Amino acid sequence: MKNSLSQRTINRLTQYHTILRDYSKKGIENITSALISQYLKIDETQVRKDLKSINCKGKCKVGYVVSELKEIIEDVLDYKITKRAYVIGAGNLGTALSKYSKFDEFGLKIEALFDTDIKKIGQNIDNKPIYDLKDISQIIKKTGVNIAILTLPNKVAQSVTDELVIAGIKYIWNFAPTILTVPDGIKVWNENLIGSFLQFCAIEDIK
Amino acid sequence: MKNSLSQRTINRLTQYHTILRDYSKKGIENITSALISQYLKIDETQVRKDLKSINCKGKCKVGYVVSELKEIIEDVLDYKITKRAYVIGAGNLGTALSKYSKFDEFGLKIEALFDTDIKKIGQNIDNKPIYDLKDISQIIKKTGVNIAILTLPNKVAQSVTDELVIAGIKYIWNFAPTILTVPDGIKVWNENLIGSFLQFCAIEDIK
Repeated sequence: MKNSLSQRTINRLTQYHTILRDYSKKGIENITSALISQYLKIDETQVRKDLKSINCKGKCKVGYVVSELKEIIEDVLDYKITKRAYVIGAGNLGTALSKYSKFDEFGLKIEALFDTDIKKIGQNIDNKPIYDLKDISQIIKKTGVNIAILTLPNKVAQSVTDELVIAGIKYIWNFAPTILTVPDGIKVWNENLIGSFLQFCAIEDIK
Repeated sequence: MKNSLSQRTINRLTQYHTILRDYSKKGIENITSALISQYLKIDETQVRKDLKSINCKGKCKVGYVVSELKEIIEDVLDYKITKRAYVIGAGNLGTALSKYSKFDEFGLKIEALFDTDIKKIGQNIDNKPIYDLKDISQIIKKTGVNIAILTLPNKVAQSVTDELVIAGIKYIWNFAPTILTVPDGIKVWNENLIGSFLQFCAIEDIK
């Protein structure tokens, strides 16, 4: 199912999920598409269209059942399929991502961090061990983890990427603002924070 | 000009810019749309279409002049217009964003951080002072900064947002995975990292 959804729909569904989780924690049972659209400042027809596309139908005036809708979104987005990953670079960003609560809810399980700093190696972040980067190849052989979240400075991002590829990493979520060169078959997703901010500026005409 | 571009085009332009910056640093003078499309694994016709939309024309076989194209993208995306912002929360994520090299290049100037932790207040991160959150209203009155980058835990995100709004913040780039309620006229952009990752999963069929 997930593969038939557009990227933008997937993105919006996770945002609906954030609202649903908040509502669920507060014990609120129902939510309307109007309310979702107000929170996210998007068109209500868009919300209804998205929810219809995952076979979720609201009731007139009552809206959607929070727990049901939350579960359907989680199912559609494969949250039960655990996606095991390593964070490469136990700096501020790597640490922040390792603690990011929303990842677990969608099955992204950060199992460990890797660094070259001997002061960091052997420590833990949120019960996730920090290993020596030079051991990654050996560790991957045992664990089979093939997703790396790269949070390194630009100047070492490419050389470490080369090591990761040799070690068996297949998917790289790259937070370094540089473009990585990888062999065919290795997939890179460039996280683009400034692009995201500039979209905000364009929409809201921030000057 | 920026306002006539779609959000996705803006996003791609910043990614082209990352490549151009890397090339520029290496002293490489020309780049083809084919090469850009290879780096980003997107369609070459898309690259050409985007660059044509900002009035950039490549030469057959030679491609685009790196320095020219880089400058045009910067101009189109208003990099010269400084967007002054405060980071709210001097934790790992706030610290990482305060050090993020790509922001400055597009005019996003983080001028200071705010926190409530007395151990952090008075310190500096990359020459940016950490102030006491209780002083923000007073400081904003002097500086006129109206953009806040929120990197707080969910449980305090809403109450601090209420304070920010009273203090004069108009635009909030929210990294907390929770939905903020704000009065009319205040704009929130929810950064959605898990949404981004799930898009990657969908495209590459990561399981």
